[in-house]
Amino acid sequence: MTAPFSTLAEFRSALAAAPAPSEAARQGAEARNGQLTKPPGALGRLEDLAIWYAGWRGDARPRIDAPQVLVFAGNHGVTARGVSAFPAEVTAQMVANFEAGGAAINQLSQAAGARMQVHPLDLDRPTADFTQGPAMSEAEVVAALATGWDAVDDGTDLLVTGEMGIGNTTSAAAVALAVFGGAPGDWTGRGTGVDDAGLALKTRVVAEGLAANPGATRDPLEALRCLGGRELAAMAGAIARARVARIPVILDGFICTAAAATLEIAVPGALDHAVAGHVSAEAAHAPILKRLGKAPLLALNMRLGEGSGAALAINLLKASIACHSGMATFAEAGVSGS
Amino acid sequence: MTAPFSTLAEFRSALAAAPAPSEAARQGAEARNGQLTKPPGALGRLEDLAIWYAGWRGDARPRIDAPQVLVFAGNHGVTARGVSAFPAEVTAQMVANFEAGGAAINQLSQAAGARMQVHPLDLDRPTADFTQGPAMSEAEVVAALATGWDAVDDGTDLLVTGEMGIGNTTSAAAVALAVFGGAPGDWTGRGTGVDDAGLALKTRVVAEGLAANPGATRDPLEALRCLGGRELAAMAGAIARARVARIPVILDGFICTAAAATLEIAVPGALDHAVAGHVSAEAAHAPILKRLGKAPLLALNMRLGEGSGAALAINLLKASIACHSGMATFAEAGVSGS
Repeated sequence: MTAPFSTLAEFRSALAAAPAPSEAARQGAEARNGQLTKPPGALGRLEDLAIWYAGWRGDARPRIDAPQVLVFAGNHGVTARGVSAFPAEVTAQMVANFEAGGAAINQLSQAAGARMQVHPLDLDRPTADFTQGPAMSEAEVVAALATGWDAVDDGTDLLVTGEMGIGNTTSAAAVALAVFGGAPGDWTGRGTGVDDAGLALKTRVVAEGLAANPGATRDPLEALRCLGGRELAAMAGAIARARVARIPVILDGFICTAAAATLEIAVPGALDHAVAGHVSAEAAHAPILKRLGKAPLLALNMRLGEGSGAALAINLLKASIACHSGMATFAEAGVSGS
Repeated sequence: MTAPFSTLAEFRSALAAAPAPSEAARQGAEARNGQLTKPPGALGRLEDLAIWYAGWRGDARPRIDAPQVLVFAGNHGVTARGVSAFPAEVTAQMVANFEAGGAAINQLSQAAGARMQVHPLDLDRPTADFTQGPAMSEAEVVAALATGWDAVDDGTDLLVTGEMGIGNTTSAAAVALAVFGGAPGDWTGRGTGVDDAGLALKTRVVAEGLAANPGATRDPLEALRCLGGRELAAMAGAIARARVARIPVILDGFICTAAAATLEIAVPGALDHAVAGHVSAEAAHAPILKRLGKAPLLALNMRLGEGSGAALAINLLKASIACHSGMATFAEAGVSGS
């Protein structure tokens, strides 16, 4: 598929035209769930997940056969301000590590039986320093959205998007501030591990970014363009494509969720096909999930990005579907009800 | 292996003689963890799990190849008091369902790549009603402990124990009250779903059980004998065997944890090889985990038993080991440190 948009307005229209889940499949799954050999509700959130997944896939007794993990990488002009504990060269070094199979997301994708692909986005051409003006032109952000859109395989039945980009917690904090409001300190955290002085600097840089991009607070897709990065836009593009194709999504940590949030604010309901895989240790992640009304599946104090927390949650969703679609009913098993 | 005990005193001695984990392997794993291509601590609890597992297995770069799920089933004389929403026949019906592959634990074991076996324990011979005196004789509880002990395969490298037994949340509540003290209402919950009147009855029955078995509060293994059931004792036996063989264990819900708690109170450190797979919706589970100092890996509002919550956590532990043992180091990947 080639992305059906060449402007932000066309992207917004494509997203707004996305279909609803199947109510018939959802009801069929709910009826089946009530007949399985367990006390009502005893599988807790696994039951909710299975019914939700069934609705999006349009199948009351679905399978998960082809999960896909997409990792997007980008470089950020704002690293010139010294906002990260790691040098910017690490983005490309980690892309090589992804390609060689040595990163956490490689192991986690394999453990989840998921295909994993990495897409570096113009690493030798960082976004502009957003404290001086927009990080990207409209053509640049649309190209990144399209990279994400086109990266989703047609046969994918569950999607995880992750990222790598030195400096991108600063970018995500600025995006979150633009779309949710509040104070710069509400959304700025330690990322890969900056110290107190580093955190104070990041917070100042985020405030400067908002001051330099007044249009960002008026339109979430403008926030993505002016304050985001190519990997954030690519994640948003992939998540939007999944929404249009009714492919359920597991959201990862703070950066992924900030990118995804721009879709939900732009088009309410745009993230109805997404669950929160985990809540990360990055302090602003829990508040952003709360704003989106997403309860995380895992809370293991992770803060790696790469899609790692979401990839870890793939097996939870698979397990929910294995129970839903594989268990016997009371009638089939000859078990007495309560 | 044949269980090396024929009395409760000999069981206690065997447990007390269990070895410590390997400090060398633990330190080796900690050193390796510090070199992996991620910011320090970014994998959160996955890092702690991998280092803990490495110590118990005596291997700084371990694998998980052979997880085993054991489900024990027993019947309870106390069901005559009307404490369950389901009839006692359901225990045997569910055993048939486990054997036919139709239960939740079958699907969850398969999803985790674990061998699963079910052991019904004298289902046609329920324990005595513990409101009238001890549920089991010493010979009976020792036989159940031995069944659990012997059920653990020599090659197992990760163990989950689960249970099925109509009436066994009442039994577990009585055991928890005996070993931790407090009020009967502190440990008594709705189980498979009794109503308010049912909950009040269960709470009275638990109080009567303690009154009828004064020895249970003096010795946790006596609590297991007087107030437990065969499936609780079998889980305790399997967990004890795993402790002796340095096989890490994932604890399941309230009933499994109550049974396991008798070991820790009897021999402090007896559960050092165990993590809590989840916290269940049964209200007394969170407090018992707190008493044991175990933070649950999952909190998905499950309350099925069967080992289901622990089986769901197997893939988390597998993922932690996949990262620990499979990731590249900074040096191997040519990635710059911070």
